[in-house]
Amino acid sequence: MLAGLSVVSPTGSKGRRVQPQWSPPAGTEPCKLRLYNSLTRNKDVFIPQDGKKVTWYCCGPTVYDASHMGHARSYISFDIMRRVLRDYFQYDVFYCMNITDIDDKIIKRARQNYLFERYREQKPPAAQLLKDVHAALKPFSVKLSETTDPDKRQMLERIQNSVKLATEPLEQAMHSSPSEGEVDSHVQVLLEEAKDLLSDWLDSTGGSEVTDNSIFSKLPKFWEEEFHKDMEALNVLPPDVLTRVSEYVPEIVNFVQKIVDNGYGYASNGSVYFDTAKFAASEKHSYGKLVPEAVGDQKALQEGEGDLSISSDRLSEKRSPNDFALWKASKPGEPSWPCPWGKGRPGWHIECSAMAGTLLGASMDIHGGGFDLRFPHHDNELAQSEAYFENDCWVRYFLHTGHLTIAGCKMSKSLKNFITIKDALKKHSARQLRLAFLMHSWKDTLDYSSNTMESALQYEKFMNEFFLNVKDILRAPVDITGQFEKWEAEEMELNKNFYDKKTAVHEALCDNIDTRTVMEEMRALVSQCNLYMAARKAERRRPNRALLENIALYLTRMLKIFGAIEEESPLGFPVGGPGTNLNLESTVMPYLQVLSEFREGVRKIAREKKVLEVLQLSDALRDDILPELGVRFEDHEGLPTVVKLVDRDTLLKEKEEKKRAEEEKRRKKEEAARRRQEQEAAKLAKMKIAPSEMFLSEIDKYSKFDENGLPTHDIEGKELSKGQVKKLKKVFEAQEKLYKEYLQMLQNGSLQ
Amino acid sequence: MLAGLSVVSPTGSKGRRVQPQWSPPAGTEPCKLRLYNSLTRNKDVFIPQDGKKVTWYCCGPTVYDASHMGHARSYISFDIMRRVLRDYFQYDVFYCMNITDIDDKIIKRARQNYLFERYREQKPPAAQLLKDVHAALKPFSVKLSETTDPDKRQMLERIQNSVKLATEPLEQAMHSSPSEGEVDSHVQVLLEEAKDLLSDWLDSTGGSEVTDNSIFSKLPKFWEEEFHKDMEALNVLPPDVLTRVSEYVPEIVNFVQKIVDNGYGYASNGSVYFDTAKFAASEKHSYGKLVPEAVGDQKALQEGEGDLSISSDRLSEKRSPNDFALWKASKPGEPSWPCPWGKGRPGWHIECSAMAGTLLGASMDIHGGGFDLRFPHHDNELAQSEAYFENDCWVRYFLHTGHLTIAGCKMSKSLKNFITIKDALKKHSARQLRLAFLMHSWKDTLDYSSNTMESALQYEKFMNEFFLNVKDILRAPVDITGQFEKWEAEEMELNKNFYDKKTAVHEALCDNIDTRTVMEEMRALVSQCNLYMAARKAERRRPNRALLENIALYLTRMLKIFGAIEEESPLGFPVGGPGTNLNLESTVMPYLQVLSEFREGVRKIAREKKVLEVLQLSDALRDDILPELGVRFEDHEGLPTVVKLVDRDTLLKEKEEKKRAEEEKRRKKEEAARRRQEQEAAKLAKMKIAPSEMFLSEIDKYSKFDENGLPTHDIEGKELSKGQVKKLKKVFEAQEKLYKEYLQMLQNGSLQ
Repeated sequence: MLAGLSVVSPTGSKGRRVQPQWSPPAGTEPCKLRLYNSLTRNKDVFIPQDGKKVTWYCCGPTVYDASHMGHARSYISFDIMRRVLRDYFQYDVFYCMNITDIDDKIIKRARQNYLFERYREQKPPAAQLLKDVHAALKPFSVKLSETTDPDKRQMLERIQNSVKLATEPLEQAMHSSPSEGEVDSHVQVLLEEAKDLLSDWLDSTGGSEVTDNSIFSKLPKFWEEEFHKDMEALNVLPPDVLTRVSEYVPEIVNFVQKIVDNGYGYASNGSVYFDTAKFAASEKHSYGKLVPEAVGDQKALQEGEGDLSISSDRLSEKRSPNDFALWKASKPGEPSWPCPWGKGRPGWHIECSAMAGTLLGASMDIHGGGFDLRFPHHDNELAQSEAYFENDCWVRYFLHTGHLTIAGCKMSKSLKNFITIKDALKKHSARQLRLAFLMHSWKDTLDYSSNTMESALQYEKFMNEFFLNVKDILRAPVDITGQFEKWEAEEMELNKNFYDKKTAVHEALCDNIDTRTVMEEMRALVSQCNLYMAARKAERRRPNRALLENIALYLTRMLKIFGAIEEESPLGFPVGGPGTNLNLESTVMPYLQVLSEFREGVRKIAREKKVLEVLQLSDALRDDILPELGVRFEDHEGLPTVVKLVDRDTLLKEKEEKKRAEEEKRRKKEEAARRRQEQEAAKLAKMKIAPSEMFLSEIDKYSKFDENGLPTHDIEGKELSKGQVKKLKKVFEAQEKLYKEYLQMLQNGSLQ
Repeated sequence: MLAGLSVVSPTGSKGRRVQPQWSPPAGTEPCKLRLYNSLTRNKDVFIPQDGKKVTWYCCGPTVYDASHMGHARSYISFDIMRRVLRDYFQYDVFYCMNITDIDDKIIKRARQNYLFERYREQKPPAAQLLKDVHAALKPFSVKLSETTDPDKRQMLERIQNSVKLATEPLEQAMHSSPSEGEVDSHVQVLLEEAKDLLSDWLDSTGGSEVTDNSIFSKLPKFWEEEFHKDMEALNVLPPDVLTRVSEYVPEIVNFVQKIVDNGYGYASNGSVYFDTAKFAASEKHSYGKLVPEAVGDQKALQEGEGDLSISSDRLSEKRSPNDFALWKASKPGEPSWPCPWGKGRPGWHIECSAMAGTLLGASMDIHGGGFDLRFPHHDNELAQSEAYFENDCWVRYFLHTGHLTIAGCKMSKSLKNFITIKDALKKHSARQLRLAFLMHSWKDTLDYSSNTMESALQYEKFMNEFFLNVKDILRAPVDITGQFEKWEAEEMELNKNFYDKKTAVHEALCDNIDTRTVMEEMRALVSQCNLYMAARKAERRRPNRALLENIALYLTRMLKIFGAIEEESPLGFPVGGPGTNLNLESTVMPYLQVLSEFREGVRKIAREKKVLEVLQLSDALRDDILPELGVRFEDHEGLPTVVKLVDRDTLLKEKEEKKRAEEEKRRKKEEAARRRQEQEAAKLAKMKIAPSEMFLSEIDKYSKFDENGLPTHDIEGKELSKGQVKKLKKVFEAQEKLYKEYLQMLQNGSLQ
């Protein structure tokens, strides 16, 4: 049958029984990711060295103070870029960051804090304090007169003025005869105002005698913790690996040694320096790759060397003023580690080279840091590392985040106009800050101002309204087939716009991760949706659920990639804050019930067997541990424990209250006991007096007594009246009774 | 100052003040996604036509019955591929699917159901029913005799047999005088057994008189709903747009008209046919691109035309038997729509061409469907559409999912061995089914069997244990800086393996989305982590939290991309089933941690004070109570208890298993004890026999004995040989020894 039919088969005529030729579609040239590379000051096509793997080293903070918005600028920007490379471009990013916990600034700050606190604890008398402040002001005014930088000058002048303002009232008070309290309050004010001045002075006079090394690790550990908390609050992802200088000293020593061995470093007076001239003269190397025009900038170089490392004797150790320290000999009052050149500590730049070199090897794909780190820090890092690895490509792409200004002004520590991350988070949410960052180019200056934040807030509101509208549409009751509606021209049109916007977003991300444009494209997409919804509404027709849901999901996904929406949120911004979107009660209660029953079982046994420790543990669980979780266990003798989920703050307040009440009860009880004791002591004292002697001592009242010791005449020799005698006799008889009791007690031995 | 110093500047010597030349790294050749393309039967590099946009049309179900595992095979596989293209390769996928709700099968099923229900509601008397069944059996046996396909034959025979079996008791009952209830029960059984037979017969006699058009939309609407529910239960994403044939009839009519206008279709007797010969003869077109060797296969072609459309009068309307219907004239009892050729309805293939053409235009990137749709359906779709658009590239990549077999057997509706999706979901979770699919190539045959599912379950358990271990490690209390630990060689090694595995996963996905290999690579990665954790544990050191968390997050992300973990789960498989997973982990864990610590404290005291009852209570908490809540406490001597939130059923199964194992152990022990006892009893019984008496009872063997009771002559009176006597003497002596022991024991009183 088939054979017969194959004669008329259309393929028969051409004799084809094989598949026709196939060619792939022409396609379009794929858009390639380009990154602004500080090594070329160009947007270069990004090519990782090894497949999809991207090794990335980011300069982390020097932890000696609170992180501020300048830090946020850098770390939020890199967080966004890292997320985009990982979650959008699907690179296997390996992201390393360091913590600088050995550094001149840390040493100085730790010593100053330590010395000032010790000074304050010693409670210097007013005269001593005034003397010290005047002594401290002398070198300070020299420093002021030598300062040319207007910002720094302004800061120093401000310090000087406040100190003087706080000195005067104390000096005036010393000339009059003031109360002790008055003097003390002036002293406290002056101590506060002169803190920086005195710290500096104390350090310069006594810093080298500090021998307690633990102060140099306590301070950075504290501020590192604060830094991590800030980053977590900003939803900045933790690095894949975090390196601390203090944990890499042996690696650093080896790194320095090899640079010396390779001929690019020299030891001098216990320190080791990098020989910039030698390196620059080498054919295979270049010095100052990032900012060649800054090479020789002594101000920048000296800042890079650190406050404790720019004394003239140090400078004279170097072959060239352009050379920089790889390793610093430690002076007294500075922490130190053993090394071939005597005891010392790492230079600033070397830590990054050694740590990144250890983890990422001879060449990394991306190195990131703030714009101001380009020279000398990053140029010196490059030089050292390329001297170590003897190559010319330690970093393939160098990314530098732009500056942050505060309402148009340069942010500077000397200006003291820096805003801490904690302060910023009091005013705006982490999402709002991030949206503001997303709305600006990562490599340009970002002005942190009310205008900037207002734009971010408006953007958030605009997006949120859209998400809420879509959620509302999706909630409309409909049967399952009704969720799929036929598309008309309007849906085709909106869908076309949707895919065009996706393309535009892709192109913007390829263009040096231009989130600013992405945010605008997304806003425009929402506007198109709003128009579509309005048109549908005007026609009294329901908009297409599936299409709007898809768009909302896409926007959610992009905002998730940017770190502006939490992973767990299915659509749009999460509602009610983290973790609140479920019925805590019904979820948690079964587990708490089990805990309560187990505890009861254990207590029953413990009471029977008299195991006091278990009963104490059960009480601590109820009183100390569970309230922290917002759980209240109420024990009722003979009845099951009542389990209550209460809000944590309420419980902690209750706990406080209970503690206070108990304290009060205890105090009252003690008071009563004390009073009772006093009363008894008084009574006893009275009991001890023999009735015959009780009036004899009252010679200010009576002049004559009878044989029993009862008064007969008053002080003026006048015989007492019958009434008076009767009264005294009553008192006498009462004492007689008491005294008898006393003698009885003596006999019983019931008195100590 | 700067000018003076620039003389000694290292850049001075070379006169460089500009950045050195930079070159991008060589990089590695990027791995390109290749897809197995049915148009070439090759893995072709996938190139979308327009940037990152991927237009995709997938053949949806014909909705007239419950979806079965054959559907699951196709839709889960495409769901995985779609998710991978969208979420892994970051394509902007636009995914369309149709619902075939106008179709010969639907019409026939709807009419049959309708006619049978009407027949049943009329409550036919037993005699009438028997008469009708016999009438229906006549054409049925003709059909049976004409059927050559062995599967179909078997099915028909089975129907015939069941009907006959159900007929007999009713006929017998009719001859006796049965109770009304008895007859009615026989009637109900026969109605049930003869449902298919009667439906067919009723339709062939009365089908053409059906005029209620609503039955043709009610049936598909019901089954479409069921289909969507099944897909949702399987976690298959809904399509971006869903098209129903019933909503696209005008577009279909226009599409057919243009094909006719283009010269590739002809109207005949109210129907319109595609002119395959004309099309094949055209230089710019090819017919049978997918399966050229099947062109002319009349059996396949007729199946494609539909049950109601292959009558001989219809066949004679066609110019060639290879031609197929674009539009079918409707007969009485069939739904119809107006068109230029009289009232009719769409052919099967045309719907996809018209709907996909409307939504995706003249050329789509991907068309998908089950393997058995290649010919004639997809080849005819291609021909029609390329005839309409006058092009040769309607579909760029044609993907066909492999077959599904049931425990090695072909699944076929006629064999009635198909398993509905609902049935499958009663036995296994959607995740388990999906894992099984992921562990097989999408384009090859998948055998749904207990072996297949066992592998998937093992995989799930293996991964889940890893996730639970990592979660436990992450919960260990540590301060914030303690979350970052220095990496040693072991971490560097594991991290290298991690990135190698990521690359291997990427390459496998590029290779035709080879999820089977991906799953194996992921399993290997977990094994490496397990080794690392075990080594750390052996050294009593904590494994590196950040690294393990990163790996667990990566695995979670991949399983999310595959649709095997819900979007909302932060890490690992969500706990507590769909919907309840929202942060259960993070919500409940603090309370469980408290419970665990309290229990540990109590146990410590109980061990010291030897309070056995408390230890028993602690064990019962772990073994009996917590498993009910899906909580597993793992006690490790000397280490903190490991707390795991596991799904409750798994835990209860584990508990069952443990109980069973203990029961078995106990049973075996008892058995052994019993056997030992029996052996000892037997031994004792033997011991009690005095050696002089042991042979005397064996009168069936021996006829004479000596004074010691040793046999001398056998039963036949023949004297025993020396050899025989020697043997017996040995036995005698052994018994002597035993008997002595017995007497000893009697004396000792060591016998009861």
